[in-house]
Amino acid sequence: MDQNWTLAIHGGAGALAKARMTPELDAGFRDGLRAALAAGARILAAGGAALDAVTHAVMALEEDPQFNAARGAVFTTDGRQEMDAAIMDGRDRRAGAVAGICGPRHPVLAARAVMEKSDAVLLAGEGALRFCRAQGLEFADPAWFHTERPWQALQKELQRRQSNAPDLRDDADRHGTVGAVARDRFANLAAATSTGGMTAKRPGRIGDSPIIGAGTWAENASCAISATGHGETFIRYAAAHEIAARIRLGGQSLQQAAAAVVAELLPLGGSGGLIGVDAAGNAVLPFNCEGMYRGIARADGALLTAIYDEAPG
Amino acid sequence: MDQNWTLAIHGGAGALAKARMTPELDAGFRDGLRAALAAGARILAAGGAALDAVTHAVMALEEDPQFNAARGAVFTTDGRQEMDAAIMDGRDRRAGAVAGICGPRHPVLAARAVMEKSDAVLLAGEGALRFCRAQGLEFADPAWFHTERPWQALQKELQRRQSNAPDLRDDADRHGTVGAVARDRFANLAAATSTGGMTAKRPGRIGDSPIIGAGTWAENASCAISATGHGETFIRYAAAHEIAARIRLGGQSLQQAAAAVVAELLPLGGSGGLIGVDAAGNAVLPFNCEGMYRGIARADGALLTAIYDEAPG
Repeated sequence: MDQNWTLAIHGGAGALAKARMTPELDAGFRDGLRAALAAGARILAAGGAALDAVTHAVMALEEDPQFNAARGAVFTTDGRQEMDAAIMDGRDRRAGAVAGICGPRHPVLAARAVMEKSDAVLLAGEGALRFCRAQGLEFADPAWFHTERPWQALQKELQRRQSNAPDLRDDADRHGTVGAVARDRFANLAAATSTGGMTAKRPGRIGDSPIIGAGTWAENASCAISATGHGETFIRYAAAHEIAARIRLGGQSLQQAAAAVVAELLPLGGSGGLIGVDAAGNAVLPFNCEGMYRGIARADGALLTAIYDEAPG
Repeated sequence: MDQNWTLAIHGGAGALAKARMTPELDAGFRDGLRAALAAGARILAAGGAALDAVTHAVMALEEDPQFNAARGAVFTTDGRQEMDAAIMDGRDRRAGAVAGICGPRHPVLAARAVMEKSDAVLLAGEGALRFCRAQGLEFADPAWFHTERPWQALQKELQRRQSNAPDLRDDADRHGTVGAVARDRFANLAAATSTGGMTAKRPGRIGDSPIIGAGTWAENASCAISATGHGETFIRYAAAHEIAARIRLGGQSLQQAAAAVVAELLPLGGSGGLIGVDAAGNAVLPFNCEGMYRGIARADGALLTAIYDEAPG
């Protein structure tokens, strides 16, 4: 065990356009990010596992209706919430994920239960819910998950589609995700991601978040990654695993590999970003769009947040 | 356009234990494999697209109740069939996949419709079925998919679990998948995979077949891969994309990379195998268990099949 640890989080590459940001909104987002950082940092500082740190950081973001995951999740075209989440342990690449569920208060805990209590990696829909009930996971009311901003975003988007008006939404109206990656004092890595998906998504659509290798990845030998953005492009690129492969096989640094992949995704339609850490404790938080809610905490006491193209502060 | 083309197919690493194989069964499996090879080879020989060749080869295997996909799919613990399929085009990495569906006669056509007619890559469950209906895909009766051998395998496995008897099943009772990879005369690659999953799987469980990068992958710059075996391990390893990465970033040949990954998966619980082709038309069909139904067809007229550790003939 050493003194070094690192935690990075994101609250989605779907940041509100700068022109629409107010000081009040800005403060709210940063408070939410800081609360999630604190939840994970506490565990890491005490010598806890990266796996626990990312679990608790993501739980904090899931509870916060400002972010598109669990409470505050966006809606499908038929007005439902279908949540996806994944978690991966870099020590042994154990992984768990859920897709298309609405019920468990913390989808990330559902993903973790799949990893720890089932022989599956990915469970979806009604079968996943049945498993979560059998595991005794806490369920929340539909009303608890339902919040006004994503509901209004759905109504606006459905109206737009009916009137065939051009799609002028900014990323904040389109998508969003939350995630965390950590390097603990034992140099173990972990990653977790949780999302409501894209506003007005087709029922049954599964994005990159619960796809191991696309939106979520962790292996001690390379890096831990949690992505956010246009999920389909991240899947077609196996984005998270691609970064790991460039480090492990291509001899690149985390910074090189992550920056290159995020840049390459944009012309393919992959607006978004990601967070990553490696076993040395390096962290990266690149994105290719206007903003990404993000934060980083380190053993030296730093606890920093950022939204737009700015140094975390 | 050149004269070179290659098609490789598999009918699952869940081959019947050699001791249980009879000449009649052997002939039946080989006939099924040859029919699928012929369906794809016809297209490739005429200068058709790899994407069409893998589609038609997999359709032939889906129709054949000897293999665990579509007709003949295995059953979940609650006696249902939940099918997964994926397809990927190596030209532009477009991809489509479906998970947890029972209805479309050809799940691989459902995956292809997702790729070509939706903005999603992966659709699951009821939402996926709704999309398939809207696309006018052919649906089949539950009775058509239901066959006796997988149904009896489920009953036997449920009884075994009730009596806590040791799991002595061979791979043929456990899993199975079908898949095809092709290199066409334009040096384009494609891959497709279709499966009923594992016998007595938990409802909602999604394996590696529809996970782009795990069980299915195609990019012209490296290879096209379709995997079969213990899906969870293939997901945790991002097996198909790992092979592509070792070729593209690690300078390995398809043969080296595929053989190494299949060997590395076994001690991790990943019994199974895969098929792969590269842009030069090389094909590999490695597996780490007793057998894998497989076949290969080439421009020189070769149309070969194999089941156990033997040269295709």
